[in-house]
Amino acid sequence: MKKLINHPEDVVKEMVEGFIAAYPKRLKQVPDTSVIVRADAPVQGKVGIVSGGGSGHEPAHGGFVGPGMLDGAVAGEVFTSPTPDQVYEAIKAVDGGRGVLLVIKNYTGDVMNFEMAAELAEADGIQVAKVVVNDDVAVENSTYTVGKRGIAGTIFVHKIAGAMAETGASLEEVTAVANKAIENLCSMGMALSPSTVPAAGKPGFTIGENEMEIGTGIHGEPGIERTEIKSADEVTDTLLSKVLNHLQLAPNSKVALMINGLGATPLMELYIVNRRVAKILHEKEIEVHETFIGEYMTSIEMAGCSITILRLDDQLTELLDAKADTVAFKK
Amino acid sequence: MKKLINHPEDVVKEMVEGFIAAYPKRLKQVPDTSVIVRADAPVQGKVGIVSGGGSGHEPAHGGFVGPGMLDGAVAGEVFTSPTPDQVYEAIKAVDGGRGVLLVIKNYTGDVMNFEMAAELAEADGIQVAKVVVNDDVAVENSTYTVGKRGIAGTIFVHKIAGAMAETGASLEEVTAVANKAIENLCSMGMALSPSTVPAAGKPGFTIGENEMEIGTGIHGEPGIERTEIKSADEVTDTLLSKVLNHLQLAPNSKVALMINGLGATPLMELYIVNRRVAKILHEKEIEVHETFIGEYMTSIEMAGCSITILRLDDQLTELLDAKADTVAFKK
Repeated sequence: MKKLINHPEDVVKEMVEGFIAAYPKRLKQVPDTSVIVRADAPVQGKVGIVSGGGSGHEPAHGGFVGPGMLDGAVAGEVFTSPTPDQVYEAIKAVDGGRGVLLVIKNYTGDVMNFEMAAELAEADGIQVAKVVVNDDVAVENSTYTVGKRGIAGTIFVHKIAGAMAETGASLEEVTAVANKAIENLCSMGMALSPSTVPAAGKPGFTIGENEMEIGTGIHGEPGIERTEIKSADEVTDTLLSKVLNHLQLAPNSKVALMINGLGATPLMELYIVNRRVAKILHEKEIEVHETFIGEYMTSIEMAGCSITILRLDDQLTELLDAKADTVAFKK
Repeated sequence: MKKLINHPEDVVKEMVEGFIAAYPKRLKQVPDTSVIVRADAPVQGKVGIVSGGGSGHEPAHGGFVGPGMLDGAVAGEVFTSPTPDQVYEAIKAVDGGRGVLLVIKNYTGDVMNFEMAAELAEADGIQVAKVVVNDDVAVENSTYTVGKRGIAGTIFVHKIAGAMAETGASLEEVTAVANKAIENLCSMGMALSPSTVPAAGKPGFTIGENEMEIGTGIHGEPGIERTEIKSADEVTDTLLSKVLNHLQLAPNSKVALMINGLGATPLMELYIVNRRVAKILHEKEIEVHETFIGEYMTSIEMAGCSITILRLDDQLTELLDAKADTVAFKK
């Protein structure tokens, strides 16, 4: 197993320590947890926003904690849902009196544990709402998931909800706009190679030397097609056509675009994918308001990418454009 | 070869197209070249700054073009120095009447081709200065290099020189502060796996399943030790001790720190490396003014990392902290 780690069982603990050590002015750790919150949390009078999930998707979600996005992020073990008590600690740490929104990726364990945490917090008198992100159009139902999986589009939900919360909006208003983002969001990914959970010590699935997989999830969940390696343009056409078919964008629609790397894919290749995406969207007279290319939601060292499109209206555009100041997303 | 590309010979051309397509408000391409410049280039009355080199190191250098850093970047073929005529085009495109500084990584081909381009531009009456970055303390002389190699510390030179240029400083002043940064800069890297130049179709070197290499260059140039895989803490101790030994930092020194991923290394692992670096620097009473963790200077899909330290005085601190607005570096 080729990893720069110490002991496999310590990776999350040590990662959180090293992350906090890098950004002490921005972030703090809730003691004895793997919960990362804004240095100034809780922000009084503002809805708090918490996300999280299994580790191995860095910079998600700790990299998106800061003004204009998340108030807190919970890091479970690698590819493992955080426990309800950890999520509960995060909710308490960010509650500034206006309630807390949980942004949950659609995995059965995440949904269950975040819900249990919400119940614990509500018993303390904290108002809690939740939204479930299910942007991955590849498959209905999957390993760990009933319905569609939540993947890189989750970052746009962080951004939209975070910007809304900064305006002083109520928990209901922040929840409503987060759901609006989710309804207008669609992603799909592919993998060239698998990733290895440190504690497992071997790849989560195997894929032939001349093969790729279309529709793979961010934990290596099965996709829809195992095929020989195709060109970047062909792969892009496959992913984008499924995303566009789902969103049914009319000409003159305005969108935000994310080309997300899964961990080991060079930026060079993501730019080559974007070349094709930009060309197709231009031909379809779809206006790309802003393009985001890089690693936002990874799968440890998986090679591959996902394409996400968020349909924008005036409100979502304004919220996407609003200031954000986090480690991995600055505007 | 597991890459999301179309034809190996088209990767740089298509990458530049896809990159420019993503950021049309920020950047423009000099027609018929692989030169990327600020959308508002040339900026009149400001020293222009140009860097570049072989491709395969993304986001270097196009990702650092923008206000507060570079005015232009030249992308050669993968791991191949850009030709003098391409560099010459970049110089002409960013010259705003105050002269142009070339920031060159120390590789024989780069130095030669940037110097030839400088001569062409000087014949046109453009004042050109150059600095050569040689921050890699691993080895003296190497494949492609006389003296020490230039690696991720180059990004700090971009930042310092770029900020100085924004103040309206003269070419001599910008050059002087860039050289000051270089004199206070030291890096060292390691590799767990090699990278594959698309046109070659196979890895540039081989490394055993249980091996790593200390001191590897960003083109896979040999390091100083091939060893069995060690723990993140042991590897960090080896790299950091060599960097610290070179810089001879006194207690209470102030530094900027970069933990750079080489392409396939997850952020999780870079954070674990930073945990150890932060601990050691704290013990040595060295103040880390700011930590940068991520992919700044990659080697296509190489797994591995480098550690860079820049010793700061008041002037360098102020220039490092100054505003910058580029794709890959925002302050």
